[in-house]
Amino acid sequence: MNTFGTLYRFTEFGESHGPAIGGVIDGLPAGVVIDTDYIQSQLDRRRPGTSAANTARNEADRVEFLSGILDGKSTGTPIGFLIRNTNQHSSDYDRLKEAFRPSHADYTYTAKYGLRDWRGGGRASARETACRVVAGAVATLALRQVLPGFSLSAKILQVGEATQDFEQAILAVKAEGDTIGGIIGCNIQGVPAGLGDPIFGKLQAKLAAAMLSINAAKGFDYGSGFEGVALRGSQLNDPFENRDGRIRTRTNHSGGIQGGISNGEEIYFRVVFKPIATLAREQDTVDAGGNPIRLAVHGRHDTSVLLRAVPVVESMAAMVILDAWLLNRNARIQ
Amino acid sequence: MNTFGTLYRFTEFGESHGPAIGGVIDGLPAGVVIDTDYIQSQLDRRRPGTSAANTARNEADRVEFLSGILDGKSTGTPIGFLIRNTNQHSSDYDRLKEAFRPSHADYTYTAKYGLRDWRGGGRASARETACRVVAGAVATLALRQVLPGFSLSAKILQVGEATQDFEQAILAVKAEGDTIGGIIGCNIQGVPAGLGDPIFGKLQAKLAAAMLSINAAKGFDYGSGFEGVALRGSQLNDPFENRDGRIRTRTNHSGGIQGGISNGEEIYFRVVFKPIATLAREQDTVDAGGNPIRLAVHGRHDTSVLLRAVPVVESMAAMVILDAWLLNRNARIQ
Amino acid sequence: MNTFGTLYRFTEFGESHGPAIGGVIDGLPAGVVIDTDYIQSQLDRRRPGTSAANTARNEADRVEFLSGILDGKSTGTPIGFLIRNTNQHSSDYDRLKEAFRPSHADYTYTAKYGLRDWRGGGRASARETACRVVAGAVATLALRQVLPGFSLSAKILQVGEATQDFEQAILAVKAEGDTIGGIIGCNIQGVPAGLGDPIFGKLQAKLAAAMLSINAAKGFDYGSGFEGVALRGSQLNDPFENRDGRIRTRTNHSGGIQGGISNGEEIYFRVVFKPIATLAREQDTVDAGGNPIRLAVHGRHDTSVLLRAVPVVESMAAMVILDAWLLNRNARIQ
Amino acid sequence: MNTFGTLYRFTEFGESHGPAIGGVIDGLPAGVVIDTDYIQSQLDRRRPGTSAANTARNEADRVEFLSGILDGKSTGTPIGFLIRNTNQHSSDYDRLKEAFRPSHADYTYTAKYGLRDWRGGGRASARETACRVVAGAVATLALRQVLPGFSLSAKILQVGEATQDFEQAILAVKAEGDTIGGIIGCNIQGVPAGLGDPIFGKLQAKLAAAMLSINAAKGFDYGSGFEGVALRGSQLNDPFENRDGRIRTRTNHSGGIQGGISNGEEIYFRVVFKPIATLAREQDTVDAGGNPIRLAVHGRHDTSVLLRAVPVVESMAAMVILDAWLLNRNARIQ
Repeated sequence: MNTFGTLYRFTEFGESHGPAIGGVIDGLPAGVVIDTDYIQSQLDRRRPGTSAANTARNEADRVEFLSGILDGKSTGTPIGFLIRNTNQHSSDYDRLKEAFRPSHADYTYTAKYGLRDWRGGGRASARETACRVVAGAVATLALRQVLPGFSLSAKILQVGEATQDFEQAILAVKAEGDTIGGIIGCNIQGVPAGLGDPIFGKLQAKLAAAMLSINAAKGFDYGSGFEGVALRGSQLNDPFENRDGRIRTRTNHSGGIQGGISNGEEIYFRVVFKPIATLAREQDTVDAGGNPIRLAVHGRHDTSVLLRAVPVVESMAAMVILDAWLLNRNARIQ
Repeated sequence: MNTFGTLYRFTEFGESHGPAIGGVIDGLPAGVVIDTDYIQSQLDRRRPGTSAANTARNEADRVEFLSGILDGKSTGTPIGFLIRNTNQHSSDYDRLKEAFRPSHADYTYTAKYGLRDWRGGGRASARETACRVVAGAVATLALRQVLPGFSLSAKILQVGEATQDFEQAILAVKAEGDTIGGIIGCNIQGVPAGLGDPIFGKLQAKLAAAMLSINAAKGFDYGSGFEGVALRGSQLNDPFENRDGRIRTRTNHSGGIQGGISNGEEIYFRVVFKPIATLAREQDTVDAGGNPIRLAVHGRHDTSVLLRAVPVVESMAAMVILDAWLLNRNARIQ
Repeated sequence: MNTFGTLYRFTEFGESHGPAIGGVIDGLPAGVVIDTDYIQSQLDRRRPGTSAANTARNEADRVEFLSGILDGKSTGTPIGFLIRNTNQHSSDYDRLKEAFRPSHADYTYTAKYGLRDWRGGGRASARETACRVVAGAVATLALRQVLPGFSLSAKILQVGEATQDFEQAILAVKAEGDTIGGIIGCNIQGVPAGLGDPIFGKLQAKLAAAMLSINAAKGFDYGSGFEGVALRGSQLNDPFENRDGRIRTRTNHSGGIQGGISNGEEIYFRVVFKPIATLAREQDTVDAGGNPIRLAVHGRHDTSVLLRAVPVVESMAAMVILDAWLLNRNARIQ
Repeated sequence: MNTFGTLYRFTEFGESHGPAIGGVIDGLPAGVVIDTDYIQSQLDRRRPGTSAANTARNEADRVEFLSGILDGKSTGTPIGFLIRNTNQHSSDYDRLKEAFRPSHADYTYTAKYGLRDWRGGGRASARETACRVVAGAVATLALRQVLPGFSLSAKILQVGEATQDFEQAILAVKAEGDTIGGIIGCNIQGVPAGLGDPIFGKLQAKLAAAMLSINAAKGFDYGSGFEGVALRGSQLNDPFENRDGRIRTRTNHSGGIQGGISNGEEIYFRVVFKPIATLAREQDTVDAGGNPIRLAVHGRHDTSVLLRAVPVVESMAAMVILDAWLLNRNARIQ
C-alpha cells in the first residue's frame, strides 16, 4: 500500500516528526546515470521557504543514497535512500494530541488504526512527498536517457479564481489567515505511441491514481476533460493525418491518449487541489472524546499547497510514464 | 493488467466479436449469498436497446457462472463466468480493417502490438464493461451483506450542457448524426470510517483509477472537486461535531474521505465522459498505410455512453469499496 | 491467489464437478504463434485413461479458446479459455459429503471456509492442473519462438524405490489396493544467462513455489540438492572456463543457476510426490461432527500421480521461465 | 522483486559494502508491541563471530528504526529501518573486481546487468539476510501476540554427513581449507487450521519459495518429504480422530498442511544448504575477459552457512505464517 508502480516500484516510509523519511526504488534497470545534483535540485523546488508564500519551516532535505548505485550508475538492484528530519518541533503539536483537526486525517487515522502519530500529522503529513520527488527525479533521468525528446513539466494554472499573479494571490489570502487551492496543469512531450494498457491499465487511469494520491488533490482530468463537456463528437474527434511521414492527429482533444494508450501526441492533464486545512484562525471541532473544542493552530504552515505540489505532480507523472515504458517493452514477443 | 483490485481481484478477458467475454472473481470470501437475479438485473441495465437513445444492438448478455458457488453461496474459490457474444456482425467492420478511426484505439493498439483485432473494436470495445457489471454486482451483494445501511447509486448529472431531460437531449444530438458526452455522479452511503489507506492507497486514488479505466471517461473529482476551486479553506473545512453520540462532520466538502480514508460520511464523486467517437457522419482520417481516407461508419452505435455507463460506474465503485473493506480488516492486529 | 506469475500471469478457476474449469492468460506479448494442436497434445498427455496405470475416468478435456488470438497469433490481450467437465459422477461422492477423508483437503477447506464443495474434491482436486497444462503449453510456444535451442522435459526418475519399470511398479501397488509416490526430474536447456532476480526473485525460489503448488508434491531440489549434502565446497564448486569462445562451467552442480540467476548451463531439478491419498481400502477417519467412521472410497482413482504429473511439472516450469525471460528484458535500460 | 509477501510485505535494499542495508515493512497491522530487545537478540544470533566456526568479521549490526512505531507499538504505517555497514574492507576485494569466482553470482550478475557491485559480493552477499531477520522478528512478535501457543524454531539437523557435534564437524572442514553444507529443520507449533490457500497460494509453496530465496539453499521438503518416497499411501495417510474434543490427525506425515492449508498440527520442513563457495584454496576460473586465472580468496569467510542460516530460516518462515494469517482473516465474509 506504500508501494507505487508495477515494474518501476517505489516503496516509501516515514512520518513528519520521526527520525527520517525515505524509500526504496526497485525495478530500475541497470545503466541509468544517476545525476544526484539534478535530484537535489528537484528536492529544492519542493522545499518550504523558497517563496514568501510558503511556510517558514526550513528543512535541509538532503537525500542520502544507501544502495543500488555504483560509479554514478544504477546497478539494477534497489536504491534505498533517506532524508533526515532535522527541524521537527514536536512540542508545537502537543496541544493537538487529543484534537481532531477539521478536514485533516486525525479522525480517520484514529478510526482506522486505533492510534495515530499525532506529531505534525505523522504519516498523513505532506512531508512524505519529498520522497516522491526523489523517486520521480530518478524516473525522469531514466526517461531522458532513453527518450531523447522527452520533457515533462507542471505549472500552476489557477489559484482560487486567479489565473495569473499566483504568489500575489496566495499572499493576499495569507493576510486574511485563510488558505486557498487551485489547479496545476502538466504537459508531457516526447512520449512514443504505445505506452499504457487496455482496460484497467489505461495510462489515464494510472495518472489519475497517481495524482489523487497527492495530499489535497480533489480531481483530475486529461485532454478535453471536464471543460469539454459541452462539445459534440464532431468537435472533439481528432482526425488522423499524415504529417512529415508520420501518422499524427490534427487536433489533440484526446490529450495524447486513445484507448488507454499513448498516441505519440502531447499528453496533458490537470489536477485540482483544495485549500490547506490548517488555518491561522480558530475553528470548531471535537477532541478524541467527542467533546466540542475551539482549535487554533499556530506554527509554520503553507497557505497553499500549489507551489510545492508542482514538482510532486511532475514526479508522480514521471513514475507513471517510466513504468508504462518498461511494461511496453513486452508488448510484442519480438 | 487485466486484473483489478488487491484482495477482491477481478480478471477479465474478451473481445467484442470473439466467442465470449468473461472473467474470474478471486478473493471473494466464502459465505456471500449470490443472488443471480440481481446480477442479471444489473446486466440488463447496461444492455443496449433499453432506450431509444441507445444502439439497436440487442444482445442477450446472459451470464453463465462456472465455478466458486455452491448452494447459492460463494465458496471462497474463484468465480469464473462468461457471457457469450451472440449478435456479432463482423462483416459490418470489414471496411474498417485498414482504417484508423478518429479518436478510437485502432491506431494506438496497432502501434503497441503490431496487430489488432479490428472486429468491432476488439478488446477496446466497451462491450467488456458487461463483465465489470457482473463483478461489481457480486461486490455489491457482499457489501450489502456486511454493511446493512450500504447503498451505492450513480446517475446522470449532465448531458452536454443539459442538466435535465437527458434522453431528449441525446435524441436531439442523434438526429444530427452527432454524439454527446456528459457527467455522471455517484453517491455511496453506509461506508464505515476507516476504509482506504495512507499515501498511494488513498480511497480517492483507487476510485479515480477505477473511473478513468472506463471507456470515454475523461476526468474524476470528489467532494468539492473542480467546482470548489474558488473557495477558501475557511469555507471548505468540515468541522467535526458530536451528533447523536457519534463524531460527524457538519458539512461534507471532503466527500466522505479525509487523508485517503473514509470518515463515515457520504462518499460522492463525479466522472466526465466524452462523446462517443463513432459518428454517423463522414470524417477525415488515414488508413494503416498513412493514406488519407474519408470514413463513414454505418451500423449500430450509441449516441452517448452515459445511459449505459451508469451501472458501470456503480460496478467499479462497488469493487473499490469492497476491496477497501477487505483490506481494512487487517488495519489492527486485534 | 489463483493467479501465478508476475508478467506472464495465469489466473485459474474451476472445480472438479462444476460445469467447467478454465483460466485467463494475461501478459503474453503479441505475435506468439498459437499452435492449438500442440496445446491439445500436451493436454492429452495429462489425460487419465492413457495408461493402464491411470484412472479409468475418460474425460475429453477439449480446450476452448475464447479470446486473445487472431489469425493464429496472440494479440497481446488476455487469452480466456475453458475446458468443460463432461464426465462427472457427483453421486459417486454423495457418501463423502460429511466425511473428512484422510490426507485430503476436506478438513482444511472446511476449517478455512466454513463450507466446501465436496463433489470430487472440488477445487482441491487435481483436475485443475489441466488448466495449468494449457497455460504452460502456451508459455512453451512463446519460449520456442524466442529461444531457438530451448527444450524443457520432465520424466519419472523413481516410483517408490523403483528406478525403472515404472508402470509395472505402479500396477503392482494397484493390485494391493494401495498407492505410491515417487520423484520426477526436469531438465531445461537453451535458457540464456541472466534469467531470475536477486534476493526474493531467485529463479530457484520461483521454481520451488511452482512445483510445491502441484497437488501431492512434498519437496523440491535443484543442482546438487539434497543428495550433495555429503560433499565439500571443493567438490561442488563449478569452475568457469572458456569453451568455444563462451564462458561456461566445467561441471554443473549449480543446476544452471547461480545467485538466483541462470548461467546458461542446463537447469535441472527434482520434485518428490507422495502417494495419492485415496485408497481402495477401508480407512479410519471422522465425519464433520468428529465421529469416528470407517471410510471406503470406490470410484475411479489413480494409483500414482506421477504419470499425469509429468506434463504439469513441465507446464509450471515453462511458465516460470517465460516470466523470468519477460522480466529480464528490463534488466538494462538500453 | 526485492519485496516479499502479499499483505505483510517486506522490501529490502543494500549491498555488502555500501553505506547501509535496510528495508521497509509494510502491512503490519497497528497495535503490535515492538520489542526491540528481542529483535536485536535475533540479529545477534545471525551475527558472525559468535562461534569459532564462523567468520571473524565482527559487525555490530545495530538496527535503527526510522518510522512506523509510536510508544513501542506499530502504528499501521510502514516501518523503515537500516543497519549501517561499519566494518567493510573493500580493498580486500580489489583483486576480485575482474574475476568470476566459481559458484558465486559474479558471472550471472554481470551477464544480467552488464555491471556489478564487485565489493564483497555486492547485493549477492548473504549480508542482506540481516534485514530478513529484522522483518522476521517483527513478524514473530505479531504472531506471538495473536497466537498464544505459537512457537517457531529451526535447528541444524546435519552438517555434511554428521548428525551431531556440528561445530566440531565444521572446524574439521575449516582446517582443510574447505567448506561444508548441511540440512536445517524447522518446526512450527500453534498455527491454527486454515492458513494457506488453494492452488498457487499453498502454504508449502510459499515456504518453499521463502527458503529457496536464502543464499546457498538447494532444496526444501516438508512432512514425509523426499525420505518418504519409499512408503505407500496406506503408510503415509494421516487418519483423523477426535482427540480431546478436537479433530486431530493420529500421525503427521502431512507436515501440518493438507491441500495447501494448515490443519492445526505441527508444521515441519527441511532446507538443504550447499557448502559456501568461497574456499581458502586456489581454484581455477576465468576473468571477465574469459581468460583462465588461478584464484585464491583471502579475507574473512565462514566455513558453513548453517550456523548463521538458522535465524534466517526462522525469519522467512515467520513472515510466511504471518502473511497467511492476515490473508486468512478474509476467508469468510462474516
